[in-house]
Amino acid sequence: MAAPGRTAAELAERLLGGDRRALARAISLVENDDPEGWALVREVYPHTGRAAMVGFTGPPGVGKSTLIGALVKNARGRDREVAVLSIDPSSPFTHGALLGDRIRLTDHFLDPGVFIRSMASRGSLGGLSEATLQAALLMDAAGKDDVFLETVGVGQAEVDIIDHADTVVLVLMPGSGDSIQALKAGVMEIPDVIVVNKADHPLTDTMVREIRGVLSLGPQEGWRVPIVRTEASKGAGVEEVVQRLHDHRAHIEAEGTLEERRRRNLMNEVMALAALRLRRRLEESVGRDPDVQALLDEVVGRRLDPASAAAQLLERNSG
Amino acid sequence: MAAPGRTAAELAERLLGGDRRALARAISLVENDDPEGWALVREVYPHTGRAAMVGFTGPPGVGKSTLIGALVKNARGRDREVAVLSIDPSSPFTHGALLGDRIRLTDHFLDPGVFIRSMASRGSLGGLSEATLQAALLMDAAGKDDVFLETVGVGQAEVDIIDHADTVVLVLMPGSGDSIQALKAGVMEIPDVIVVNKADHPLTDTMVREIRGVLSLGPQEGWRVPIVRTEASKGAGVEEVVQRLHDHRAHIEAEGTLEERRRRNLMNEVMALAALRLRRRLEESVGRDPDVQALLDEVVGRRLDPASAAAQLLERNSG
Repeated sequence: MAAPGRTAAELAERLLGGDRRALARAISLVENDDPEGWALVREVYPHTGRAAMVGFTGPPGVGKSTLIGALVKNARGRDREVAVLSIDPSSPFTHGALLGDRIRLTDHFLDPGVFIRSMASRGSLGGLSEATLQAALLMDAAGKDDVFLETVGVGQAEVDIIDHADTVVLVLMPGSGDSIQALKAGVMEIPDVIVVNKADHPLTDTMVREIRGVLSLGPQEGWRVPIVRTEASKGAGVEEVVQRLHDHRAHIEAEGTLEERRRRNLMNEVMALAALRLRRRLEESVGRDPDVQALLDEVVGRRLDPASAAAQLLERNSG
Repeated sequence: MAAPGRTAAELAERLLGGDRRALARAISLVENDDPEGWALVREVYPHTGRAAMVGFTGPPGVGKSTLIGALVKNARGRDREVAVLSIDPSSPFTHGALLGDRIRLTDHFLDPGVFIRSMASRGSLGGLSEATLQAALLMDAAGKDDVFLETVGVGQAEVDIIDHADTVVLVLMPGSGDSIQALKAGVMEIPDVIVVNKADHPLTDTMVREIRGVLSLGPQEGWRVPIVRTEASKGAGVEEVVQRLHDHRAHIEAEGTLEERRRRNLMNEVMALAALRLRRRLEESVGRDPDVQALLDEVVGRRLDPASAAAQLLERNSG
């Protein structure tokens, strides 16, 4: 206990001082579910809550990373320290398909004021969402002013990840028909800011009109979701995105919804972590515990229903 | 205990006899998380495992319900009893946006050999996935030969729901650019059968070529994912979909992967149910238990980190 405790404390001190190698190592610990990683987050947690966290989601190929690259450049021009966390939920089917996107951030690789990291799915989106928050907290504690979270896809699971952010940006491009349909059908949550990238495309106006139509179906009070046109690769429209992010933050601070959002997210997080830990504990017991294995065999043999088996498992683990 | 037990037993008997009102009532019990619903599933579970379960997913508007309607008609022509379960993950933002799709199934509303039901998200996709399996088991126990599960969207959460099926069908239409990108990037899992609906569209060939390109990046052994063109509204291509579903089932039965798939899904289900129950128990305790409330206040106040709070909660509930 003593040695790892000391290591965590040392690492925490370097991290709080803004040391990027300490931050990189800390995130690896969290990503690998190392107990020392959790100890570290525990240590630095009181120093968190200061960074502005912005989440970016949208289908692959719309230019999220290019936009984030442009926003990083803008933030650096205002002397803000930035961290980018890309969460890659790719299935094992096509490894590294998103790497192309990542490379667009290389402009900033040598800038000590920018920290870039990606984390990959390890099959459990629940677990990935938890690891995302831990990593974001570490970035926050390391003194980053802006933390940009990026994920790919527009389903509920991706939204859960991005929900750790204070402001959620949906990035689309002309031709993102499926996403518009998903917004329209209410399958996708309404974000705080919508960016239509690659806005030199002739179908941009149609797209913006369609989005407006969808938004007009929603609540008409409170925050009005702005639609910003960008050509991120040329930097066009990026200033306006920065302004809208600023506006949204001012709005949620003034309304008290920032605190409310964070409170709700942290509570969800605690519940999710507790449930996840229990699930891991149960999963580990399957291989080791012949009784658990026998219970599952009963389920597969259609002699014991899944809910009864779950109740029995929970009972055993609460005994 | 005695009275509800008797009711469940009576309801179970009627359900096993194929009584549709009993089935409808049973699903409502499960949907409302009524303990009697769980008792019922426990009762009829030994009579499940017989139905062919097919899951359909894809973005909104591609014509999934029209296709399912055509498949229902085809199955009825072969004297098979069919159940359709539509799972609607719409956010509260736009209620009933998918109703238009549903209406296309009304042809079958009066046919006693067809049972149609939709279930809506209640904010917890985890819980919805569990309720889906319970409802599908009830349909299976009621003697349906085919159970069609339908969901909207193509994220991980939707795939989790559809994973209860033996065969997964992805339905697209020309212009489903986001979905192709998601397949390509590995964000979306590769399904067992791909249907390109509305195949009278001039861009159909391009779309099929793109899908072939994506599939060629994947594993080249085992089951080859067929791409079927349909115009479901005219019935065109539906016979071929039926044939491909049959082929896939024959393939997984011959290879033993049907048993393997079901075993894996049931095991995941038991773990998920146990974790979900714990989470519900914890969530309920927040309102009632001042100690839990105090613990969460510590987290929001940045004095106690989320993981430590989760561990303490789990400890308390295992004590």
